[in-house]
Amino acid sequence: MTAELISVGTELLMGNIVNGNAQFLAEQCAALGFGMYYQVTVGDNYGRMKAVIETALERSDIVILTGGLGPTEDDLTKEVCAEAMGMKLVEDTHTREHLKSFFENNIYKEIPENNWKMAVVPEGAFVLDNGNGMAPGLILEKEGKTAILLPGPPGELYPMFRQQVLPYLQKRQQQALVSRMVKICGYGESQVEDMLLDLIDKQTNPTIATYAKTAQVDLRLTARGEDEKEAEALIAPVLHEIMKRLGNAVFTTDEYVTLEMAVVELLKKKGLTISTAESCTGGMTAAKLVNVPGASNVFMEGVVTYSNEAKMRLLGVRQETLETFGAVSRETAQEMAEGGVKMSGSDICVAITGLAGPGGGTDKKPVGLVFMACCLKGRTEIREYHFKGNRDKIREQSMMKALDLVRLCVLEHS
Amino acid sequence: MTAELISVGTELLMGNIVNGNAQFLAEQCAALGFGMYYQVTVGDNYGRMKAVIETALERSDIVILTGGLGPTEDDLTKEVCAEAMGMKLVEDTHTREHLKSFFENNIYKEIPENNWKMAVVPEGAFVLDNGNGMAPGLILEKEGKTAILLPGPPGELYPMFRQQVLPYLQKRQQQALVSRMVKICGYGESQVEDMLLDLIDKQTNPTIATYAKTAQVDLRLTARGEDEKEAEALIAPVLHEIMKRLGNAVFTTDEYVTLEMAVVELLKKKGLTISTAESCTGGMTAAKLVNVPGASNVFMEGVVTYSNEAKMRLLGVRQETLETFGAVSRETAQEMAEGGVKMSGSDICVAITGLAGPGGGTDKKPVGLVFMACCLKGRTEIREYHFKGNRDKIREQSMMKALDLVRLCVLEHS
Repeated sequence: MTAELISVGTELLMGNIVNGNAQFLAEQCAALGFGMYYQVTVGDNYGRMKAVIETALERSDIVILTGGLGPTEDDLTKEVCAEAMGMKLVEDTHTREHLKSFFENNIYKEIPENNWKMAVVPEGAFVLDNGNGMAPGLILEKEGKTAILLPGPPGELYPMFRQQVLPYLQKRQQQALVSRMVKICGYGESQVEDMLLDLIDKQTNPTIATYAKTAQVDLRLTARGEDEKEAEALIAPVLHEIMKRLGNAVFTTDEYVTLEMAVVELLKKKGLTISTAESCTGGMTAAKLVNVPGASNVFMEGVVTYSNEAKMRLLGVRQETLETFGAVSRETAQEMAEGGVKMSGSDICVAITGLAGPGGGTDKKPVGLVFMACCLKGRTEIREYHFKGNRDKIREQSMMKALDLVRLCVLEHS
Repeated sequence: MTAELISVGTELLMGNIVNGNAQFLAEQCAALGFGMYYQVTVGDNYGRMKAVIETALERSDIVILTGGLGPTEDDLTKEVCAEAMGMKLVEDTHTREHLKSFFENNIYKEIPENNWKMAVVPEGAFVLDNGNGMAPGLILEKEGKTAILLPGPPGELYPMFRQQVLPYLQKRQQQALVSRMVKICGYGESQVEDMLLDLIDKQTNPTIATYAKTAQVDLRLTARGEDEKEAEALIAPVLHEIMKRLGNAVFTTDEYVTLEMAVVELLKKKGLTISTAESCTGGMTAAKLVNVPGASNVFMEGVVTYSNEAKMRLLGVRQETLETFGAVSRETAQEMAEGGVKMSGSDICVAITGLAGPGGGTDKKPVGLVFMACCLKGRTEIREYHFKGNRDKIREQSMMKALDLVRLCVLEHS
């Protein structure tokens, strides 16, 4: 089964926004085992849209369209699809009621006349209620081809896809498909591939796909079977073998869990509190932890000690240490972490000091040199890294590795 | 003149990465005054690539392709383009030398045999040296059609486009095109449009395009003329009028300057130092400032005081204030900012305290309520906001508004 994406919107052609919807839908289709060979972006123009939709329906089984479902004259996706598939437009009473109550509950005013346009649907379409906006989604089926029309705003598209389109597409798969995500920190993509070479080489069912991210590698295992049980049985031994080989480097097997969520969860489970002491990352690590809802249970405070004076006053780093070894050193990282525990009273402090560049590097201490330390109950683990890339990249890698260092320290020493 | 984008890469079709290159190139083409009607993503497959490239060359004047220029067998963009345009492949001595020296300076090992593939170019192509990677870019011209082939990694593509492709495309424009960016913080998109309604309504030359971002609106003015001077003369009065109406809400007219860069620049100019005191933003504001190269000249330190205890110890917020008004209050924000100045010895401290959700809201203090304060030389400005959106969105808006508050305080009171 093949799927194709058509993104409709002048704002994409003008570069006003990045097409995050396309990435989301492409990843979802890959997880469903659909082949995807084309993605097309087109503007709100009847003729061009029609040509693009007809081509897509000819060469792909399922065409997923996003955008152009709103109430204005520019919004044409539904109309063009209906014509391309030879379907008549009719008013849908259910959607009319839905729109009416959406307006009453959210906008508190009379619905403008042109908005009723959104209650008109191609005859025979499955209507997907929009729980987060006005325009409903639609599924059109005709002569073995399927068009799925979804609203453009991600806050409407994502939940609609997960709650209504995904179950529909899963049913469309003749075979049951089971997918598992393995998220890894601590090894690069090629290291992971080396460690799993024999498994990757002989992969057919389940398939193993690697996704390289900043300081993180994701593996997606996908198995097909007659039913879910059979697919599960195919995936289980491979997953088990991968987990055995990668050990603690795997921080989650849950698709929706991020590294910071895994760290906060682990700290909660162990009843530990944490503080942060950052130099080159400038607060990114604290911000990442705080981004997890409920982080206040484990995260107490953080300091960004950019100047030496701040390192001494807020963390008790000794002037002698800074003068002898420098601000970017193993010794300073250690004193920052240990000072952070002392000052904050938290169980753990993770400290980061490094050179993110672009300036400031020397032969002995080049840009990309980063020290981090994690102090947990009197024991301090220190790491030295030589990161590559620009300032952003160095800081992001530092932040990820610092979070991972916390995770490993807690796993190994608490 | 019309332009079309073709993004080549299985990683886009699998949803492994978001297509940021397409946004960048679309915005650049819009600024150049090119019409763009299509963007297509296709995998590394000879037949499908060829069909997509032929269609694009037929319907668009300039086709910009990204990706698929590397050394592996999968990399086919150059080969397929050459065939589609009927051009022979020949070795380019200059590129061979360039590759050799790139390897010697960056990778320190013998160049693998298959990498010489990158020195082969379609006969008659303009070669664009790659200052940040191996594969060169290429410009192919034939029978009034142009194909521009660029490497996929953004760190290679962006500088190559700005330094080499942009001047080439500017020359291709029959008319001179002048573009100015006006970046605004403090008004929403519809407010900006209301304030400039008469200018936007009668726009033809220059055109005015609005780009809504988080807590920021960008306006791009684009004028065409016989020569640059004429275009400049057309843009000047409109730009002047916009600047007059928007006043201090405009933080830059430089395309490449971000809000945090403008703040750091302003602080440098005024010789002022800053510290941050954050609760709900958890260090994002500090991280944003530190992300500006050279921030160490103005940014001293930051604290993330998530717990009340930390607010008292690190910032001297009084227990009575926290008990009477709560952690999310005008009074706490003020004491955080004033305490931050006292503790850090910096000239300015900006403080943020709020409810980012999802939990923790009440009728009196709903999720999205954020207080911020900026203390500058004994004078404290306080703001109350009611932000909408999810946790991320609330925190990002808070961070942006806090940076803008610093900017306005410095502009008005120093």
